[in-house]
Amino acid sequence: MPPEKPVPALANFEKAFRPRSVAVIGASDDATRISGRALHYLIRAGYRGAIYPVNNRRETVQGLRAYAALADVPQTPDIALIALPSRLLEGALTECLEQGVGAAVVYAAGFAETGSDGGALQDRLAAIAAAGDIRLFGPNCLGLLHTDSGFAGTFSSAFDTALPTPGGAAIVSQSGAYGGHLAYLCEKRGIGVGYWVSTGNEAGTDVADCIHWLALQDDVSVILAYAEGVRDGETFRAALQAAHDHRKPVVFMKVGQSAAGATAAQSHTASLAGTDAVFDALCRQYGVYRAQTTQEQVDVAYAADRGRFPTGRSLGIITVSGGFGVQLCDAAERGGLDVTPLAESGRAKLRELNPMGSDNNPCDTTAGWLNDMSLITKTFDVMYSDGGYDSIIGSFTMLPDSPTYGEEIRKAIGAGTSEFLDRPTALCMEARTEVVRAYERDGFLVFDDSERAVTALSALAYFAVHFDTPVVRRDRKRTTRAPLGSDPLSEHAAQQLLTEAGIPFPASTLVTHPDDVAKAAADLGFPLVMKIVSPDIAHKTEIGGVVLAVEDEAQATAAYATVLERSTAAAPSARIEGVLLGVMCPKGVETIVGVTNDPVFGPTVMFGLGGVQAELFRDVAFRVGELDRDEALKLIREIRGYPLLTGFRGASAADIHGLADVLVAASRFAVTHANGLDSLELNPVVVLGEGHGVLALDALITVRPDPREH
Amino acid sequence: MPPEKPVPALANFEKAFRPRSVAVIGASDDATRISGRALHYLIRAGYRGAIYPVNNRRETVQGLRAYAALADVPQTPDIALIALPSRLLEGALTECLEQGVGAAVVYAAGFAETGSDGGALQDRLAAIAAAGDIRLFGPNCLGLLHTDSGFAGTFSSAFDTALPTPGGAAIVSQSGAYGGHLAYLCEKRGIGVGYWVSTGNEAGTDVADCIHWLALQDDVSVILAYAEGVRDGETFRAALQAAHDHRKPVVFMKVGQSAAGATAAQSHTASLAGTDAVFDALCRQYGVYRAQTTQEQVDVAYAADRGRFPTGRSLGIITVSGGFGVQLCDAAERGGLDVTPLAESGRAKLRELNPMGSDNNPCDTTAGWLNDMSLITKTFDVMYSDGGYDSIIGSFTMLPDSPTYGEEIRKAIGAGTSEFLDRPTALCMEARTEVVRAYERDGFLVFDDSERAVTALSALAYFAVHFDTPVVRRDRKRTTRAPLGSDPLSEHAAQQLLTEAGIPFPASTLVTHPDDVAKAAADLGFPLVMKIVSPDIAHKTEIGGVVLAVEDEAQATAAYATVLERSTAAAPSARIEGVLLGVMCPKGVETIVGVTNDPVFGPTVMFGLGGVQAELFRDVAFRVGELDRDEALKLIREIRGYPLLTGFRGASAADIHGLADVLVAASRFAVTHANGLDSLELNPVVVLGEGHGVLALDALITVRPDPREH
Repeated sequence: MPPEKPVPALANFEKAFRPRSVAVIGASDDATRISGRALHYLIRAGYRGAIYPVNNRRETVQGLRAYAALADVPQTPDIALIALPSRLLEGALTECLEQGVGAAVVYAAGFAETGSDGGALQDRLAAIAAAGDIRLFGPNCLGLLHTDSGFAGTFSSAFDTALPTPGGAAIVSQSGAYGGHLAYLCEKRGIGVGYWVSTGNEAGTDVADCIHWLALQDDVSVILAYAEGVRDGETFRAALQAAHDHRKPVVFMKVGQSAAGATAAQSHTASLAGTDAVFDALCRQYGVYRAQTTQEQVDVAYAADRGRFPTGRSLGIITVSGGFGVQLCDAAERGGLDVTPLAESGRAKLRELNPMGSDNNPCDTTAGWLNDMSLITKTFDVMYSDGGYDSIIGSFTMLPDSPTYGEEIRKAIGAGTSEFLDRPTALCMEARTEVVRAYERDGFLVFDDSERAVTALSALAYFAVHFDTPVVRRDRKRTTRAPLGSDPLSEHAAQQLLTEAGIPFPASTLVTHPDDVAKAAADLGFPLVMKIVSPDIAHKTEIGGVVLAVEDEAQATAAYATVLERSTAAAPSARIEGVLLGVMCPKGVETIVGVTNDPVFGPTVMFGLGGVQAELFRDVAFRVGELDRDEALKLIREIRGYPLLTGFRGASAADIHGLADVLVAASRFAVTHANGLDSLELNPVVVLGEGHGVLALDALITVRPDPREH
Repeated sequence: MPPEKPVPALANFEKAFRPRSVAVIGASDDATRISGRALHYLIRAGYRGAIYPVNNRRETVQGLRAYAALADVPQTPDIALIALPSRLLEGALTECLEQGVGAAVVYAAGFAETGSDGGALQDRLAAIAAAGDIRLFGPNCLGLLHTDSGFAGTFSSAFDTALPTPGGAAIVSQSGAYGGHLAYLCEKRGIGVGYWVSTGNEAGTDVADCIHWLALQDDVSVILAYAEGVRDGETFRAALQAAHDHRKPVVFMKVGQSAAGATAAQSHTASLAGTDAVFDALCRQYGVYRAQTTQEQVDVAYAADRGRFPTGRSLGIITVSGGFGVQLCDAAERGGLDVTPLAESGRAKLRELNPMGSDNNPCDTTAGWLNDMSLITKTFDVMYSDGGYDSIIGSFTMLPDSPTYGEEIRKAIGAGTSEFLDRPTALCMEARTEVVRAYERDGFLVFDDSERAVTALSALAYFAVHFDTPVVRRDRKRTTRAPLGSDPLSEHAAQQLLTEAGIPFPASTLVTHPDDVAKAAADLGFPLVMKIVSPDIAHKTEIGGVVLAVEDEAQATAAYATVLERSTAAAPSARIEGVLLGVMCPKGVETIVGVTNDPVFGPTVMFGLGGVQAELFRDVAFRVGELDRDEALKLIREIRGYPLLTGFRGASAADIHGLADVLVAASRFAVTHANGLDSLELNPVVVLGEGHGVLALDALITVRPDPREH
């Protein structure tokens, strides 16, 4: 187990990113070596705090006075950059502890990633840091930097020539190489970067900690994150909650999706979930944008960095040629933006303005306006004021790059959008970098591909909706009411627990003696279903342990004997608790409700349609933690087969609110029993007609040992 | 109707693209005007043939001797570029006809795109051109060019500064603006362009004609095409067939997908098809790559231009940091490439070579080899020779751009891949254009994003498979055996026609008198289904015209009366042909087979699973024209629900070959009756267990008037 986190959880981050003084332990003169490069970067970047090279074999290092030991340094440095081989690290970190250093970066590799010896050393480093509330980065990381204060605590070759151009973006990457790549791409794209950190082996500080602290900084506009996995679900959720509450867009690249399919899991629900799907669900719950490609990550960060978020998904399109408009319509449909028609008031204005152009959305202006730039100004104005679009994409191909027209076009579009600076206007163009930068200074987003512009605007709309939607808070007061024990639970026992938790099952009676069958059956009413009850028989139907459509008392008595006989034949040593008589369920839409207790993220609810939809077509959706009714309704709407619940092809609508209640109850039950629950599956859950409720027909609970008992 | 096409269909293309002489009718001195720009481009590009400006008000134009009329020109020009307003066009084109000019380009706009007057003039131009076998381009187009001969018959501003860099790519675009944009992007990407043409209103020459002719040219490596729609399915298929037969990759941007959903159609099958889906199917049949975005179109063309097509889908991955390898694995899974493990022989070599790196695929080399470049050489060699990968992606971030290492890295990778030049090696990097070009000269494909590299390699594998797979040829000898008439067909009549065509239905007998029911029923055997037969009753079940599970003769006689009574009650004026007694079908997998007779592409087969799969989840696939068994099996495998036919979750496998035979028979029937058929729907087609065949349970044929009867 990793050591306890220091309290408060975000201690000393300030000293790590904006230190007033830095010690470089093991600093060398050779700027091509790791031990020299961080110091070189610090000096070159004009870091304004004090720099203390620590090297017991030199008087000076890179022109600065060197100190033989950390204890010799005239003040306690806020942060120590430790460029030492692994055998010297424990000693160095202990010195940091003794001196009261606030933060430390360990660059060396060869720890947990190489096996158990390295892992043990890494744990010892973590323990030393925790003992002194030292904010530890690494080991096996490339460090961190803060552009504004010229603090470059990194040796990444990505900063060989210069630190990033200052700006609001923050880059948090487990992989230093990927983080460096992102920094390069941001620079190329004109995105200023204020904070950069690589977390490496994360002995003390992980990606989630960094996101959490950065979310609290006023000068951060957007956070670009990269991770291969998440180890601590609680910390991670706290970080995403902070980002949500502070309206900080997080654009996440989480790799390892394809591996997720490989982890085979015992229960049906678990095999569908997989940790990557849970991560994905969590992103959607907290409004984090998960990018599929690096290009998409940078595009979305670029757009989010400007801080203009549209209030809806309607899109106006203005082009210089019809074909680009059609292409943008296709892209908008794929990207979930609505190319709604222009209001008649606007259409009339466009007709008068530009008889050769089109008078609707998308608006093909043709290129006639090159002789009268006011036309393009007015077109933008009409589209925004009469169309009321939440955002506009203008497609101008190479025209803005023209030495003849370029400058005029920029001014004309600027004039047409100046009243609508609250809404993002994206322009598609092919132009030299200096032309693009001029447009950007005017507040436009510039893309060289229609699809990429649509993707970015769609992401902005996603952020806007999520920022304004509260996240369901966890009820920390919910405690374990009853331990589930460590034995398998029979269906009957599971049903009892779940009924108590508010999940509806058909009326039923457990019968343990043949003489009781007739009366129990008559009391319930016919037709009935009869099932064997045994914690040792998981697949009742396969062994003939279920009899359907029992119509009268005589059939019931006969079925009782049959079911027992078959079960004993198939599983001679099974413990038999009796036979369950249950009322037959009316027809409805069959769904599946499942919960897996993810080792990282905790109880995760899965919802899908029954039958092949969930299994073959993977038409399932997930939510982490406890749901409320609104969130449950969102979950229900997320599956592709949702129309089957609203009255597909003339069928009557199903009881979606009843279904939502079941999801809420299942999530609460799972959160309450999180310590002992392994998984819960209700399959099928039959959703009856609107107002007629929902019935779970089968319940399976698997348990695992409560970790607190060990 | 448009006028008949000239025969042979591709007449005078040679004169259009590689003319020995050009007349510019309406040539002006002002190079900023359309009438001056094409002439300006011709002169500047160093066109080597004769140029004859035609202008009856000038002695010279742009320094060349001008002629008052086309008749005055000293030789018959191969092509005439007509830069005149629309009112002068008929006269000018007639002169071309009289002088025997081979090809003509009409730039002016204001034709079919503006309404009926323009359309009539356009038809007259087409008729004049057809009369003289003039290869006509436009109207409303930006012309064409051939780089090698310096022939620039265009006024597109895309060529304001220069013609394209010569090369093997050909650009064919209905939209001149999109075509110009593509030319710009190709130049930027280092793709040489040999041919460029914009077809505009396509009065004489359409995108398909151009693709067809370009497919026959030895110096064309790849064709980039853009269209908003296809008007002539036959010409289009002939063009794709030619491209397939000459192994020319075609990368198509067809816009207007989102509009497809809007066309409501009467029959169920038609509402699922839509012309865009048919276009899509056709691309897959002929091995044309349909790009979703312009970026993808250019990426795929860039890769295809090099002419190295992998023989399979296995992918080797070499990176300098583990994270990029994981990311590439994710991308490969999305893109359909297989990251197969390395053979043990190769793993042993990698372990010895680079103990710090990984010894498998993906291979993370770490950056240790910067001190020993032979390591990266050997890694590539091991991955190709021991791994046998069909292609490799190497991810090197900014390293190749390094002034220190860049050149050495290029040589090292080159040495490691020199034995494997038949396979495409793609490198992901961020580097200056000159560095990228150097890698490209060495034969590498260079991308700046993992996902884009994977997409391009996946496209190359797609081309390779399709080039080696024969396309099902249409049997032109198949002629209409029997007209379908213009009256609606009853189910019984449809069944008879389709049974004759080889489609299996359950054994059945049509009974028209109550006295015949008992014997007919006994002869067929029980249980039976009984259905009303009437050409006027389409929805039999809804009116109670179907009785299921008839178990004996008495029930059959009763059901006969019931069915007739309900039908007469529901549709008093319906023509009743009798009652159909049919054997009940055993259980099986329910599928749908449909054919729509697409107005452009002709009979198009649709296949899908029954129930909500086809309707709600759109899990259907299409093929245009006649199928053979192999193509039918491919069609069956294309739907997502295919596993349901191969024995999902322990079910027995279904009779896929029997199903393929039904698809073949349906496609042949539709092609045979293409003149009179509107649509055909078999729903459901029940696929029984392997070897037990298939049964169509319901057949609906709708007819339309044979156009030849008008």
